[in-house]
Amino acid sequence: MASIAFIGLGTMGLPMAVNLVRAGHDVAGFNRSPGKTAAFAEQGGTAADSARDAVRGAEVVITMLPDSPDVEAIADDVLTADGALWIDMSTIAPTTARAVAERGRAAGVRVVDAPVSGGEQGAIDGTLSIMVGGAAADVEAARPVLDVLGTTIVHVGPAGGGQTVKTANQLIVAGTIGLVAEALTLLRAQGVDLEPAVEVLSGGLAGSTVLNRKAPAMRNHDFTPSFRVDLHHKDLGIVLGSARDAGVPLPLSATVAQLMAAARAQGHGDLDHSALVLVIEQLAGLNQD
Amino acid sequence: MASIAFIGLGTMGLPMAVNLVRAGHDVAGFNRSPGKTAAFAEQGGTAADSARDAVRGAEVVITMLPDSPDVEAIADDVLTADGALWIDMSTIAPTTARAVAERGRAAGVRVVDAPVSGGEQGAIDGTLSIMVGGAAADVEAARPVLDVLGTTIVHVGPAGGGQTVKTANQLIVAGTIGLVAEALTLLRAQGVDLEPAVEVLSGGLAGSTVLNRKAPAMRNHDFTPSFRVDLHHKDLGIVLGSARDAGVPLPLSATVAQLMAAARAQGHGDLDHSALVLVIEQLAGLNQD
Amino acid sequence: MASIAFIGLGTMGLPMAVNLVRAGHDVAGFNRSPGKTAAFAEQGGTAADSARDAVRGAEVVITMLPDSPDVEAIADDVLTADGALWIDMSTIAPTTARAVAERGRAAGVRVVDAPVSGGEQGAIDGTLSIMVGGAAADVEAARPVLDVLGTTIVHVGPAGGGQTVKTANQLIVAGTIGLVAEALTLLRAQGVDLEPAVEVLSGGLAGSTVLNRKAPAMRNHDFTPSFRVDLHHKDLGIVLGSARDAGVPLPLSATVAQLMAAARAQGHGDLDHSALVLVIEQLAGLNQD
Amino acid sequence: MASIAFIGLGTMGLPMAVNLVRAGHDVAGFNRSPGKTAAFAEQGGTAADSARDAVRGAEVVITMLPDSPDVEAIADDVLTADGALWIDMSTIAPTTARAVAERGRAAGVRVVDAPVSGGEQGAIDGTLSIMVGGAAADVEAARPVLDVLGTTIVHVGPAGGGQTVKTANQLIVAGTIGLVAEALTLLRAQGVDLEPAVEVLSGGLAGSTVLNRKAPAMRNHDFTPSFRVDLHHKDLGIVLGSARDAGVPLPLSATVAQLMAAARAQGHGDLDHSALVLVIEQLAGLNQD
Repeated sequence: MASIAFIGLGTMGLPMAVNLVRAGHDVAGFNRSPGKTAAFAEQGGTAADSARDAVRGAEVVITMLPDSPDVEAIADDVLTADGALWIDMSTIAPTTARAVAERGRAAGVRVVDAPVSGGEQGAIDGTLSIMVGGAAADVEAARPVLDVLGTTIVHVGPAGGGQTVKTANQLIVAGTIGLVAEALTLLRAQGVDLEPAVEVLSGGLAGSTVLNRKAPAMRNHDFTPSFRVDLHHKDLGIVLGSARDAGVPLPLSATVAQLMAAARAQGHGDLDHSALVLVIEQLAGLNQD
Repeated sequence: MASIAFIGLGTMGLPMAVNLVRAGHDVAGFNRSPGKTAAFAEQGGTAADSARDAVRGAEVVITMLPDSPDVEAIADDVLTADGALWIDMSTIAPTTARAVAERGRAAGVRVVDAPVSGGEQGAIDGTLSIMVGGAAADVEAARPVLDVLGTTIVHVGPAGGGQTVKTANQLIVAGTIGLVAEALTLLRAQGVDLEPAVEVLSGGLAGSTVLNRKAPAMRNHDFTPSFRVDLHHKDLGIVLGSARDAGVPLPLSATVAQLMAAARAQGHGDLDHSALVLVIEQLAGLNQD
Repeated sequence: MASIAFIGLGTMGLPMAVNLVRAGHDVAGFNRSPGKTAAFAEQGGTAADSARDAVRGAEVVITMLPDSPDVEAIADDVLTADGALWIDMSTIAPTTARAVAERGRAAGVRVVDAPVSGGEQGAIDGTLSIMVGGAAADVEAARPVLDVLGTTIVHVGPAGGGQTVKTANQLIVAGTIGLVAEALTLLRAQGVDLEPAVEVLSGGLAGSTVLNRKAPAMRNHDFTPSFRVDLHHKDLGIVLGSARDAGVPLPLSATVAQLMAAARAQGHGDLDHSALVLVIEQLAGLNQD
Repeated sequence: MASIAFIGLGTMGLPMAVNLVRAGHDVAGFNRSPGKTAAFAEQGGTAADSARDAVRGAEVVITMLPDSPDVEAIADDVLTADGALWIDMSTIAPTTARAVAERGRAAGVRVVDAPVSGGEQGAIDGTLSIMVGGAAADVEAARPVLDVLGTTIVHVGPAGGGQTVKTANQLIVAGTIGLVAEALTLLRAQGVDLEPAVEVLSGGLAGSTVLNRKAPAMRNHDFTPSFRVDLHHKDLGIVLGSARDAGVPLPLSATVAQLMAAARAQGHGDLDHSALVLVIEQLAGLNQD
């Protein structure tokens, strides 16, 4: 069993850290807001007083933080853990992931980027999909720990590769939500019964996980968050920034990013990302009472 | 067993008509180009000399034609079949479908619109998905015949409803192809290995039938047509025209329609619609040698 | 002085026909709604009982009608005027204009397409810009009459050419309104004083007639119509249809067409097209009280 | 006459600094690449060995640098000039401009942001348009110096306001180039003579400075740079980033940013931004030999 530091005990991080404890690992947890650290201690983890305290003596450091600047800000502390393996599971810019890996090489810390998909439920159930970038040996070293957290762990390329695949994931998901929103609004405006329509759409080439999981909620305007508009808006900023760096124009993704920005600007930031349908409905002059 | 007239023996129509023959129906087939009619006769059907000849005495008339004007042009002939049930399985504008149904009511011919998805393979295998619009009794009357042709037959609403759901299908499929094309191009430009990337994307919320079926072909630039760019371009014209009629703005669909138009303008009209990836790659300055 | 039939006495047509009367021409006017015909008679014109009545004996027939189907519907009547010159000043699809010119050739009626820009004020003042398609000799024959109606009369190409240039005009105008709407909303959201901002923008490469004429109205939400959203929406349908026929993808125009459709769907169809800014403001969550 | 430090002697900065010398000011110039500093000395300026050297004792510091990080990097040096007025004329992110102004307040250096439009020719001729953000008193203090460099100097708001108006300028200019590119390509594909078409378009609501200045170059594919694709691409990154910060979705600007990114990715980065027309032509399958 490994000695693990886990930094970032939010909606995703806390259940992930708890799963590692349950798997028998020795996990020191830290979160900037102390209440979260205490909650982790209540579930069997060790509370650390600071990030630096958490990483002291750790064989593996896991970070699960909101955005690129957060990971950059914690790097000085993590890189004191000479000889450790740093698994950054945050969703951040690929360029930041590559820069952090570079700094790790200089500091004697091996770094892999391992962002996830699967949401809060996947974090609780230990069924996340994990896309991993880094040197093959480091990814293998990380695998026993990642196996506790997810069911699909795929090594996709060198440092930053995990984040790059995550950008691809986030653009496809946002875009598919947008397409389903357009389709449902078009059907609704013409008086088609949405339930059988979605059934027949699902069976053919139009079928998707988004259609299966999100269309009912879109129909009923039930936007209990599984992944919030605000977070997807942040991620689409990473997508477009990364595409700029890579010199790849993305006409559809750029358009859906504006729609997600509209969802946020219209006050839906805390709703599930499927609330994008509200933007399409408003463009169509529906729901204006 | 029913006496059926089948008009339009093209890539889709011919195997569908043959399946009806094999199911024991008495099928008179007609196609404007006589070679197709002869091919149908060779496979057990009855060759008709004209559309009017085909529909004479038919209980059921099925049409499978390229576009709205073709259906409008054949209507005079079909509507001579007093008392018949006309199942139009072409993909045409919902407004045309509603107009034809209206004319049918005046002429004593019941009309249902029943466009399909599933492609040539689905037509051959009798596994099409069929979205049906019309009066409930007429749809029930059509069902025994449709059961021969497809495995999913869903009544989605009144006349024109089938075509409306087909527009929703075509916009989602084109858009998803576009999103997957953007994602793969972004990954490729950054040196990520596409095979494991697609594997991990498929397992989460980014998963779709398009990703499963089309991503390998996009990776290998194998564009053997299952559904051609030219046809999808035509259908996106119907989608946007129908959205105009319905007063529904479709920002993503309008953008992907431009990309599909570009695929056609660049000479890829006869390739599979997954060749949309060539447009994205060209925007990114790839494949320019 | 010429004997002229003028069909279509709407907001644009009536003042144009009156200008021709004042210039000394002998003008028989007709409009489907008889009140308009009577109004024309009050201003010195001759009231015709029907289109066919109006064109009888006319040397020149001018039509100023809402849309392509209206021109197609009137063609049978106009083409009875053997030997006449038909100047169609409606904004219609270039394909329709070409088809009508073709029919004219068969019927012995010379046809030029001569759509206008300049709006109601330009029609009243006789200062329209007129873009003319047709054979050079026919355009020269039309010029004395057109000189009464406008100040810029340009022969741009063969039959349909005038309509094609009009599509270019309408896409640039709609797009520029959209860009100015985005710019003003971005400035407003950041608390910049719009008046000096517009002043400095006007002086450089961002300057345009739209910025000069429409920005003040957009700032003050004064949408007294000079050209209505509904009409521009119709015209953008022609633009995109024509681009489809010509095989030219138009990513920006297709996007602005969705925004104009949203303006209409949201109930702004009777406002000036500069009301497009309301759509952008709503996307940004402004004006929601 | 003022004692001025001028940092950044590139294509724009050098002629601006020379104009200040000619107006009688005492100007110490510095550029990272020493050749540029020497060129300035040859034209009457004083060569400084470093930025810190240049600003020593200066009453006014002017910076004209490529991008936000360059301005951030020079700030430590400039802010040693206690009591000076810093006029940053670079085009950078409004947030960076605001942050720099904040740091200036702490350091006792007054800061105004004063980006320009008008291009290299405007810099040489001293006819730039200058959009100025900052405190009214500081803007007034800067005016005598700015009057040497430009003919239109407008105070548009508080710190960052100048940069915000510059983002509005850059989005309108890029978008208008895109619209004119779409219009010309549509006309060209239909065989319309572009010269009379542009003439008639210019006279009406479609008229713009872009149409006047860039359409001839687009027609002739003469892309001698007045403002390069690479720079406009950079600026559109600032536009979209600033819109994200401000919560304003920009559907048209986001689309044109993809087209500009395509121009760059396709190897046109060093051409004039009007080379955007090459992207539209390529989408339409033109120029592929």
